[in-house]
Amino acid sequence: MANITKKVSWTSRGDDAGGGEGTPLLNGSEEVRYTRQDSPKGRPEEIPHNEKLLSLKFESLDYDSSENQLFLEEERRMSYLGFRCLEISRWVICGLIGFLTGLIACCIDIAVEKLAGVKYFVVKQNIEKFTEVGGLSISLILWAVLNSSLVMVGAITVAFIEPIAAGSGIPQIKCYLNGVKIPRVVRLKTLVVKVFGVICSVAGGLAVGKEGPMIHSGAVVAAGVSQGRSTSLKKDFKIFEYFRRDTEKRDFVSAGAAAGVSAAFGAPVGGVLFSLEEGASFWNQMLTWRIFFASMISTFTLNFFLSIYNNKPGDLSSPGLINFGRFESDSVAYNFYEIPLFIVMGAIGGLLGALFNKLNYWLTIFRIRYVHRPCLQVMEAMLVAAVTATVSFSMIYFSNDCQPLGPDQSEDYQLQLFCADGEYNSMATTFFNTPERSVRSLFHNPPGSYNPGTLGMFTVTYFFLACWTYGLAVSAGVFIPSLLIGAAWGRLFGILLPTVTASGSIWADPGKYALIGAAAQLGGIVRMTLSLTVIMVEATGNVTYGLPIMLVLMTAKIVGDYFVEGLYDIHIKLQSVPFLHWEAPATSHWLTAREVMGAPVICFNRLEKVGTIVDILSNTSTNHNGFPVVVPVAASDEPGKICGLILRSQLIVLLKHKVFVELARSRLTQRKLQLKDFRDAYPRFPPIQSIHVSQDERDCMMDLSEFMNPTPYTVPQVHRHISSCRKHLFLVSSSYSELWASDIWWWWIMTTESSVW
Amino acid sequence: MANITKKVSWTSRGDDAGGGEGTPLLNGSEEVRYTRQDSPKGRPEEIPHNEKLLSLKFESLDYDSSENQLFLEEERRMSYLGFRCLEISRWVICGLIGFLTGLIACCIDIAVEKLAGVKYFVVKQNIEKFTEVGGLSISLILWAVLNSSLVMVGAITVAFIEPIAAGSGIPQIKCYLNGVKIPRVVRLKTLVVKVFGVICSVAGGLAVGKEGPMIHSGAVVAAGVSQGRSTSLKKDFKIFEYFRRDTEKRDFVSAGAAAGVSAAFGAPVGGVLFSLEEGASFWNQMLTWRIFFASMISTFTLNFFLSIYNNKPGDLSSPGLINFGRFESDSVAYNFYEIPLFIVMGAIGGLLGALFNKLNYWLTIFRIRYVHRPCLQVMEAMLVAAVTATVSFSMIYFSNDCQPLGPDQSEDYQLQLFCADGEYNSMATTFFNTPERSVRSLFHNPPGSYNPGTLGMFTVTYFFLACWTYGLAVSAGVFIPSLLIGAAWGRLFGILLPTVTASGSIWADPGKYALIGAAAQLGGIVRMTLSLTVIMVEATGNVTYGLPIMLVLMTAKIVGDYFVEGLYDIHIKLQSVPFLHWEAPATSHWLTAREVMGAPVICFNRLEKVGTIVDILSNTSTNHNGFPVVVPVAASDEPGKICGLILRSQLIVLLKHKVFVELARSRLTQRKLQLKDFRDAYPRFPPIQSIHVSQDERDCMMDLSEFMNPTPYTVPQVHRHISSCRKHLFLVSSSYSELWASDIWWWWIMTTESSVW
Repeated sequence: MANITKKVSWTSRGDDAGGGEGTPLLNGSEEVRYTRQDSPKGRPEEIPHNEKLLSLKFESLDYDSSENQLFLEEERRMSYLGFRCLEISRWVICGLIGFLTGLIACCIDIAVEKLAGVKYFVVKQNIEKFTEVGGLSISLILWAVLNSSLVMVGAITVAFIEPIAAGSGIPQIKCYLNGVKIPRVVRLKTLVVKVFGVICSVAGGLAVGKEGPMIHSGAVVAAGVSQGRSTSLKKDFKIFEYFRRDTEKRDFVSAGAAAGVSAAFGAPVGGVLFSLEEGASFWNQMLTWRIFFASMISTFTLNFFLSIYNNKPGDLSSPGLINFGRFESDSVAYNFYEIPLFIVMGAIGGLLGALFNKLNYWLTIFRIRYVHRPCLQVMEAMLVAAVTATVSFSMIYFSNDCQPLGPDQSEDYQLQLFCADGEYNSMATTFFNTPERSVRSLFHNPPGSYNPGTLGMFTVTYFFLACWTYGLAVSAGVFIPSLLIGAAWGRLFGILLPTVTASGSIWADPGKYALIGAAAQLGGIVRMTLSLTVIMVEATGNVTYGLPIMLVLMTAKIVGDYFVEGLYDIHIKLQSVPFLHWEAPATSHWLTAREVMGAPVICFNRLEKVGTIVDILSNTSTNHNGFPVVVPVAASDEPGKICGLILRSQLIVLLKHKVFVELARSRLTQRKLQLKDFRDAYPRFPPIQSIHVSQDERDCMMDLSEFMNPTPYTVPQVHRHISSCRKHLFLVSSSYSELWASDIWWWWIMTTESSVW
Repeated sequence: MANITKKVSWTSRGDDAGGGEGTPLLNGSEEVRYTRQDSPKGRPEEIPHNEKLLSLKFESLDYDSSENQLFLEEERRMSYLGFRCLEISRWVICGLIGFLTGLIACCIDIAVEKLAGVKYFVVKQNIEKFTEVGGLSISLILWAVLNSSLVMVGAITVAFIEPIAAGSGIPQIKCYLNGVKIPRVVRLKTLVVKVFGVICSVAGGLAVGKEGPMIHSGAVVAAGVSQGRSTSLKKDFKIFEYFRRDTEKRDFVSAGAAAGVSAAFGAPVGGVLFSLEEGASFWNQMLTWRIFFASMISTFTLNFFLSIYNNKPGDLSSPGLINFGRFESDSVAYNFYEIPLFIVMGAIGGLLGALFNKLNYWLTIFRIRYVHRPCLQVMEAMLVAAVTATVSFSMIYFSNDCQPLGPDQSEDYQLQLFCADGEYNSMATTFFNTPERSVRSLFHNPPGSYNPGTLGMFTVTYFFLACWTYGLAVSAGVFIPSLLIGAAWGRLFGILLPTVTASGSIWADPGKYALIGAAAQLGGIVRMTLSLTVIMVEATGNVTYGLPIMLVLMTAKIVGDYFVEGLYDIHIKLQSVPFLHWEAPATSHWLTAREVMGAPVICFNRLEKVGTIVDILSNTSTNHNGFPVVVPVAASDEPGKICGLILRSQLIVLLKHKVFVELARSRLTQRKLQLKDFRDAYPRFPPIQSIHVSQDERDCMMDLSEFMNPTPYTVPQVHRHISSCRKHLFLVSSSYSELWASDIWWWWIMTTESSVW
């Protein structure tokens, strides 16, 4: 081993005149070199590999196209027409992604509606039966049992079959789009479990939404379709082979996520902006246009099939899973002097969001410590389902908010309960309903539909229920519960306002405040900004509310960020994903490249012994995913000079195909390795342990020059603004593995991750 | 001279084993070095400086922050709070940009409405007077004279005071956002002339719109506000000094352009996407959010002030200069089977757009050759104005399309002419009106408001008028005329459809086809895609039309691109701007960095003689804007090694302040040069000719190490995918000057541009 791991440190050359601690060296732009260790001043000898801080589960995605000889040969063989065909395939794939995502959304929607419909019908019958004669506890038990069993089925599939399908999936997709490969996140099995799970949990009456999971589903669809094969089903359609690499796949996944958002909220532009905001490390005009295309197709497909399902073919009026209903600009436009009120609501949303996130943070830590066994997770989910039913029932039972049945009231599951004939229980419209319908009721029911007390009670209970629910081992999103909480206190705000200001007429419509409250609460929890504004605007179908929604989301974000991070970021952190944020931490503003680089870096020679390679790949302390390839300089004391970068996956394929110099000489007929061999192995490269190399073969040599990337990205070691430099390189590549020479801390984060799947 | 211009070529080192023509060298990642000329194989000796191809008017913007010692010192002095304040200033500036842009839009709108109102009132009175008694030729003359005089005033200001204010300004802003500085494009004078000119030309009845100029106006406002001073007014507010460099200014200009779009169309999201689509070489989450903020403020400001002007304060229903009116989704939703029809319309739009562009291309070439004197330009503009009036009048005069006055008809300038009482001349609603109102009439007037003949005649005449008008020396946009042409033939299409299919009922509303036609025509002319879809969707206020509009724009773009480029690109080319497109030309797919690099490159030593620097800067054959700084290696035969990059502007400032080594020694009290000195000179650095250097001073030395950027971007010379590499580096920097080592062809384009202003 010792002879191959080159010690790396910093040359202290004669012209290092700048010297001294803190004073940056100004001696020109020396490229980073791999040299012997000699007296580094003012920097740690070696950055400790604090492996506890980092999970070994994750791998980095590699977004740099390795421009090696094989790649070049293939590109050369390809004609102009070939490139054209590729471009057309990309469009076709995006169309397919949109279509399938829309179809899945449609299936989820119909399944949830049907299941929830049956459930509420049964419970309603039961309640009506026992309201007169007494014995409503039986109804409660019936409701709780129905909920629990539905949730149990969902939780069992998630906890035992595919735990990664739990939650909304947005944190995972955010990681994927930013270069961290979370195991199994874009597999077919995950999709199936996710879809099945979300149907169960929403129909099971949990305080969850079906919108977040759509984004994950879209991403999985994209990852599958774009590869033209399913490894799970062992089916290879032999199409789209060119797209079997990280860069291309990531592009399609971003389209899939956008299509998911688009189907969830009927917001194609919002979908595009979501993809850009969450995966902001890339931007390409053609790609964005394709993403938009996928989004459009997705919302159109959903709309089309739902219109057929609703027996109104051609009436394309339900573009998303959640439909906020139409806010007509004439009737409920806001006034200039209401803007300060909106900003206050934004601040409230930020505060409540921070509280939500903090509570959920503690809860998640508790869960990681004590509720990690699948059966416990299932039991917790069932408990939450039962408690949700019980709380809802009690709230409805003890509520005395009776409202007259209006002529145009079209609530599907109205409960009369103890109300007089011709009246219904107002609390039941929020609790005894799917969350999507409750949101719409809060937005659009005429003034006076809810008592302030009802709304207040609902807000408080639903807040804690939703907070408890997020993070359960069920497939479910947090968008709708957030909207619902916000709509409730927003409407309350709107109702209480006239009593405070004593001028009832101008604050006529509390629905407007419900909308603003919903935006504030959602913004306070997830802290998305641009994309969320556009999603809300598209979902309401009214551009007029753009400015207030934007102001509210900004306020909510600023206030919320003061206390605690966004919910998704919290969960990313708690899963110890090495997520690289867009903005570098403020403390990194002063670092130069040389200061953050770690040592020693494991290198290979261009002609390397097979045994050495196998040893390094197997050694857990050197299980990096990319290795610089160096050439020694003539004088032996001089530093080795970097001439390329080779990835672990490439080495694995080479070892598997036994591409050894000696064998090539003896067996002249051996097929030359092609890019196809790498693509066929993508993305599930076998672990090094599964590759058998005999003792004889260990003495063979491997010539890496044909396979390494001869043009990896480098930065001068005196590059000062690591923050900007990292950002730049991140822009260039979005991949940790390309940061290797610039920012070894991150490089190290990446390379210490082993491939475990 | 000979001793300082280092010959640059390619090292043919011993390990260049790959050799041979066409076969790329695979010998590791040699950094590009400046060495002696020795036997380059398989590439041209020197790329000819075909100066005729390139205009010397343009300069490149430099988007890389030069991380030199001064910069570093300043950053070090700045506290965390300082960075916070900067961030807040950015937001404040964006708010101001939005506010001022909205205000300007408001002024333009009111001025145009007032002027046009007076004009149409006078002409209408006159026509009514002479309709009975005969002598309508007097009305015609009155109309033509009014138009011509208004246009004359506008054309004179533009042609004699600020020619850059001609046209829509979108090509210029597109160039600015992509790194080409067109002289005087973001000056205050340009703004004043632009605003005044657009009022004159729209009120003068030309076939133009006031929307394009809004984008330019927003950009100028942004460039002015963000610098905290006006060089024209010689007023320095001593604020926002930190933002006096190209990167920051470009960011604000993109916000200004977005605010302009937003004010023009009431489309804040469309504005953001416009900035991203046109200036796609940068992307940053925070910046995008600020751009969105500026857009929102802009549309809100316009809306607010217009509501006050219209005596309906608080009614925020006119968010843009053009208001498409509301397309209610219930009444005019499209059906699935209409989509193929829309695609056909898209193809028609593409064809007509290509025809428009081709005609305008020839016309522009004619103008460049023969109509380049300001007085000729003014005369041409007047001629067009007179012809427009004459043609419009004749069309109205000979039209026999009389329509009954409906109860809710609210056209402002209805002409009865020869129609019976209670009827009005239908042709006059399109010709005798501001284009914005005509578009709205075509979209929303009830079925039967127009005869097919009227629409056909109108389309043909307006097509040629608009084509003739674009490129005149008046400040005016092409958006509205395009929409108008498209709306006319779209409505015609919608009217003729039932007669062809013989099933009248389902194609009830021709307004829908007018909208699709407008989108198709506009897309065929300007070839924008994503942003235009969103702009159209926002302007109609209806998400439902998103998919058809997108499909139509795609079809129009594909069909149009088959024949000829988009109108803006044509004009950019005809102005010989060295514009770098997002996608590299297909032929560049095979080039490696070494193949496109030119030689010799002019370099400086770190310690350079003042005389040498002055000579090089003054020499027209070496008037580059950036120069590599090299250190010689010990052995004299070895290549010089790059250690930094210094810009012409920096050298100019250094020479102006006489920062010479000898002087520093003799006058110890001399103030050290600071970043402020560079900022104060920005952006109008004096030409080298204005700097006096005595003969004694010529022998002094200048130490560049403190001022050069020690970490310029480089790529390995074997980097193959120039297309991707250029794209990458372009992403990194958006600046030609940073491509210098990677892509000398572009670098050369940039560096051969001299500073002439």
